Amino acid sequence: MSKTTSEVITCRAAVCWGLGKPFTIEDIEVEAPKLSEVRIKMLCSSLCHTDILYWQEPLFGLFPRVLGHEGVGVVESIGEGVTDLKEGDLVIPTYLGECGECENCTSGMSNLCFKYHVQVDGLMLDGTSRMSLKGEKLFHMMSCSTWSEYTVVNSNYVLKFDPRLQIEHASLLSCGYSTGFGGAWKEAKIKKGSTVAVFGLGAVGLGAVEGARIMGATKIIGVDLNEWKKEKGEVFGMTDFINPAKSDKPLSDLIKEITGGMGVDYCIECTGAQPLLNQAIESSKIGKGVTILIGTTLQTSNTINPFQMLFGRTLKGSIFGGIKPQSDFPAIIEKNINKELKIDALVTHEIQLDDINRALNEVAKQPDCLKVIIQMSKSV
Amino acid sequence: MSKTTSEVITCRAAVCWGLGKPFTIEDIEVEAPKLSEVRIKMLCSSLCHTDILYWQEPLFGLFPRVLGHEGVGVVESIGEGVTDLKEGDLVIPTYLGECGECENCTSGMSNLCFKYHVQVDGLMLDGTSRMSLKGEKLFHMMSCSTWSEYTVVNSNYVLKFDPRLQIEHASLLSCGYSTGFGGAWKEAKIKKGSTVAVFGLGAVGLGAVEGARIMGATKIIGVDLNEWKKEKGEVFGMTDFINPAKSDKPLSDLIKEITGGMGVDYCIECTGAQPLLNQAIESSKIGKGVTILIGTTLQTSNTINPFQMLFGRTLKGSIFGGIKPQSDFPAIIEKNINKELKIDALVTHEIQLDDINRALNEVAKQPDCLKVIIQMSKSV
Repeated sequence: MSKTTSEVITCRAAVCWGLGKPFTIEDIEVEAPKLSEVRIKMLCSSLCHTDILYWQEPLFGLFPRVLGHEGVGVVESIGEGVTDLKEGDLVIPTYLGECGECENCTSGMSNLCFKYHVQVDGLMLDGTSRMSLKGEKLFHMMSCSTWSEYTVVNSNYVLKFDPRLQIEHASLLSCGYSTGFGGAWKEAKIKKGSTVAVFGLGAVGLGAVEGARIMGATKIIGVDLNEWKKEKGEVFGMTDFINPAKSDKPLSDLIKEITGGMGVDYCIECTGAQPLLNQAIESSKIGKGVTILIGTTLQTSNTINPFQMLFGRTLKGSIFGGIKPQSDFPAIIEKNINKELKIDALVTHEIQLDDINRALNEVAKQPDCLKVIIQMSKSV
Repeated sequence: MSKTTSEVITCRAAVCWGLGKPFTIEDIEVEAPKLSEVRIKMLCSSLCHTDILYWQEPLFGLFPRVLGHEGVGVVESIGEGVTDLKEGDLVIPTYLGECGECENCTSGMSNLCFKYHVQVDGLMLDGTSRMSLKGEKLFHMMSCSTWSEYTVVNSNYVLKFDPRLQIEHASLLSCGYSTGFGGAWKEAKIKKGSTVAVFGLGAVGLGAVEGARIMGATKIIGVDLNEWKKEKGEVFGMTDFINPAKSDKPLSDLIKEITGGMGVDYCIECTGAQPLLNQAIESSKIGKGVTILIGTTLQTSNTINPFQMLFGRTLKGSIFGGIKPQSDFPAIIEKNINKELKIDALVTHEIQLDDINRALNEVAKQPDCLKVIIQMSKSV
């Protein structure tokens, strides 16, 4: 039997104090897990573009806050009612659960569980926080807050995984990469022999490239403004590279030029950049072209060409690439254990939690930065 | 064996002389059908909103032209190579063929045949016209030009139908209504027990309402600015009616109010009106809402909310509601013969071809006008 506890843990965490403001490493208090919750000792985490959105975008402006949503850890203690996890389990905290009973879960058409939904209010499901600093409440980031030595997560958002999976790989699979992979696999459901364009070759886009390769696409066009990404894209299975800055033509024309004028079967838009949504649509085939929008966008207004849509084109938006954590991660993890995925090629930098400001302000801005692994304090 | 002929027929047709200009009824020459073509004696035709677009929109500005694309007739003569049609066959001229061999036909994912595509240049597939007036070439409308006593159509666009189908019904099924029906059936693939909103209760929208009912939708919300449409919608299976002019709230909010805050599973946008595209998207459910755009729109730019799209929503554009004429019409016709469809309720007006100007300028503008049947000259 796993232990339950009422003990508060004091540990180090990166605390964010306001939009774009520097983080400070603080000794925070992490409460014991309550009903259906677990407390996780984090082993490592990683940096995802969505962390930067939470740091800089007014829409998410809840402070002080412990950010981080990619990561991997080990269960330290469990709350009442937790039966499927125990102390010592290796786990990934995710930002989406799967009740199996709500309309979306039972539909087989959506990963957006209504019960264990994305938590946007910076709190646990019961409306309270488990983290504080000298008595001041700290907001969580979604259901994760992985940039802390300990975090409390509702067990329905926690994925126990096969221990053959490398720790760093577990962190890298926990959000960005799998969102792209899912976009190709679960959302586009790419068919063998098809043509695919992937806009943006960050971790999400490279996951989409890899997903497309594994689904059997024969032409995989990567698009990025950074020439260095060409080599990275090829590692994951990209067959063609376009740097749109090198041409005056619209991107959709460049894609048509290398697909015999037809455009692609699937376009996976991973940037969220305003002008690219319609370019993605127009890059896809008349009659059956499908565009998957997975790049996190906060835009509430963008322009598309409905006349081009009319000719049988589809646009589908997706959170987490359609991935249902409990149902779908095991297959991705299995592929990674079997060395079918090129996850190692994602890692370009590694830092200690203490260096989080440098990671955000310098490392992440380097053109040769893909993923930054964040090692939690060695002192824990 | 059916006869081939080289005889030119002189017959009456409504000729359109320019954007928005009055039609004149003229004695035109209709050439004999060439390779793979048939000449059809029209029995009746009907008026569709797309005819008005072709009359008024600069995009389609090819004149002089014989308009009309809904209709029904009887094969008068066949050209060389035609083996599947013969003199006397009752037929519907359609604007889309089905080669069965191109990428879209073989994909099972699209009705937009690349070989027998929508003809937008006002000519036959060989780039010439079969209609003239005192030596001056007349442009065709798509592959149809049904507002003429005789028309020549490539046989691959011609549908032979079960003679138990009433002549007027055949004309009414030939475009608008079936586009809506197909939107519900072929594109949305509406599931039993689902909720549907249909924007615009013209013939297309009423076809979508009927398609939704036949697919087993349990809540079918019709939206129109014209109160008179409420009664019509109910005939076809509408369960709820919204006149958006009666509220200051966004239409998507009104739809959410009558669907328990959830929105609908499927939204079928049949108007092509600019502000309704995004309202349709926002009316659909988080996670699995699907919007089908079938309202003919010539807009090359419209605004949508990508943040709302991200949450698992889908937008799909469609020409002809995904209907493949040869493959899909027989099932619709069968349902009509079996009196499962309420086609009779579409007909509100009937005119002679001579009255085409009155039909366009007066009859079609009346609030109680749905479909105008056009009887061809009795003198033929």
